Amino acid sequence: MKIKIYTTGGTIDKIYFDQKSNYQVGDPQAGGVLERANAVLDYEVESILRKDSLDFTDEDRKLINDTIEASPCHRIVITHGTDTMVETAKGLSDNSNKTIVMTGSMYPAQYRDSDAVFNIGCAVTAAQILPPGVYIAMNGRIFNPLQARKNVEQNRFEDLD
Amino acid sequence: MKIKIYTTGGTIDKIYFDQKSNYQVGDPQAGGVLERANAVLDYEVESILRKDSLDFTDEDRKLINDTIEASPCHRIVITHGTDTMVETAKGLSDNSNKTIVMTGSMYPAQYRDSDAVFNIGCAVTAAQILPPGVYIAMNGRIFNPLQARKNVEQNRFEDLD
Amino acid sequence: MKIKIYTTGGTIDKIYFDQKSNYQVGDPQAGGVLERANAVLDYEVESILRKDSLDFTDEDRKLINDTIEASPCHRIVITHGTDTMVETAKGLSDNSNKTIVMTGSMYPAQYRDSDAVFNIGCAVTAAQILPPGVYIAMNGRIFNPLQARKNVEQNRFEDLD
Amino acid sequence: MKIKIYTTGGTIDKIYFDQKSNYQVGDPQAGGVLERANAVLDYEVESILRKDSLDFTDEDRKLINDTIEASPCHRIVITHGTDTMVETAKGLSDNSNKTIVMTGSMYPAQYRDSDAVFNIGCAVTAAQILPPGVYIAMNGRIFNPLQARKNVEQNRFEDLD
Repeated sequence: MKIKIYTTGGTIDKIYFDQKSNYQVGDPQAGGVLERANAVLDYEVESILRKDSLDFTDEDRKLINDTIEASPCHRIVITHGTDTMVETAKGLSDNSNKTIVMTGSMYPAQYRDSDAVFNIGCAVTAAQILPPGVYIAMNGRIFNPLQARKNVEQNRFEDLD
Repeated sequence: MKIKIYTTGGTIDKIYFDQKSNYQVGDPQAGGVLERANAVLDYEVESILRKDSLDFTDEDRKLINDTIEASPCHRIVITHGTDTMVETAKGLSDNSNKTIVMTGSMYPAQYRDSDAVFNIGCAVTAAQILPPGVYIAMNGRIFNPLQARKNVEQNRFEDLD
Repeated sequence: MKIKIYTTGGTIDKIYFDQKSNYQVGDPQAGGVLERANAVLDYEVESILRKDSLDFTDEDRKLINDTIEASPCHRIVITHGTDTMVETAKGLSDNSNKTIVMTGSMYPAQYRDSDAVFNIGCAVTAAQILPPGVYIAMNGRIFNPLQARKNVEQNRFEDLD
Repeated sequence: MKIKIYTTGGTIDKIYFDQKSNYQVGDPQAGGVLERANAVLDYEVESILRKDSLDFTDEDRKLINDTIEASPCHRIVITHGTDTMVETAKGLSDNSNKTIVMTGSMYPAQYRDSDAVFNIGCAVTAAQILPPGVYIAMNGRIFNPLQARKNVEQNRFEDLD
């Protein structure tokens, strides 16, 4: 079973530049996470975008959508910024023969206690098991994008009421 | 959905004691991993054993079995040493109304690049999704214990030929 | 021998907030670093400021200066942002009976491969050994502030030509 | 100023092998620590021994001694197991034109919260500053080997009474 991991930027890929005193979206981290975890999967990582998801335009979302649709792979993980993950996920809902799992992290993968490694573990597992559909794997749970939101204050995903 | 995590020791829980120049099985690490990953699950961690799984006796395996059988929870993760994980898993195969996912790690959770966080992410995800049965979540994959083994030389789990 | 550690903010103390997609100066990290390193020193950590050093005003520098001058301790470490560390150090040059070692880090202490732990090790060692004066401990070396600068492109401190 | 770092094994260099369920002395870690800390020093790492220091023989100590004596470098750091660091240090006390700083760690450098990075920071700083002599840099302090011991119960170095 092959898993394709598309990266689009977001906090998970952010790296710190001291001289500018801020974070920038850097190289995709998902591949390194899987290597360090000694994952023995048939997977491939491909970068689509390198942006904070708050900066995504309609064109960016179309690019993500077109890339997923054109992908020959049926088991897909997308790493994505958390702030608009739900919005992008909703736009992907028409793919009916692919299992698409979106994930990201609240802290950069380079951060000491980042949730990135855990979340990628959850996402690649879900992508291998779940039937076709679009899912969000965050905070140890699998969410239906139509029923989920990011709770910004509490820094976690949760069900809509 | 409630997940019960039973810990039995193994590498994942090993801690280092300098004065003795070796590792000993310490406190269960699964709870700390889930906290640091900000997992928003209804879970509970309970320690059954604290041993290297190579030292497990028939009585130890009976204790694990009895504990799982008596558990009111239907979604179960067991952290376990990797060396005899397959053996213990095979002994659990009769539970027909519980989803039981075994996991562990090749490196202690306290180790800098341990696979523990990733593996626990995989296991709790699998435990929430998979139908009743006994599974092993290691190296990013979900194995059927009857078709799996630990490849000691390559330090990873793989399918039987 | 007592060491007083004054913290003023800077990258070393920066923490990441996902929802704002940027870093903010958080709690002083020096104490935690010394605890995790099991340092058996007579030390005390006190926070003077919590700012990016690029934002320091003349008043901020006066506050640092006044605090150091008023300090009864003769072995002092100051954690400080790297961008204006040299400038602040030059303003401290008149203290003649105190050993003052400034340090900081290019990556936040919470970062996976931060230089913070190493730099604090260098700084507390230098503060115990060196004669009175003002020094900068960065990149494994001890610099005279009058002869040092931060090389922003290469992200390290170096001697003036 | 050139610093030569001789490695002799010990906890600092220990790595974990799951299949054997124990630790073994692996590749020297000091070089990697200095690289990750972005140390801009003229240094060179050379491995003399790879052993737990409890297993050192008289010949091993003679080898360390001979290597240090023959070294053209005057600023030397030795990484060494903590259990017999004091004993080895005492045997080196005759070198009168070299600054020799011994260090090691209570937890392997590969361990998540190891003291190795901090201790190497302390040691390279002390090696650059201190006058000729033999010193032990552990727990954030600089010890005279003739007045120091490892307190095994409390897992730290301390002054003799």
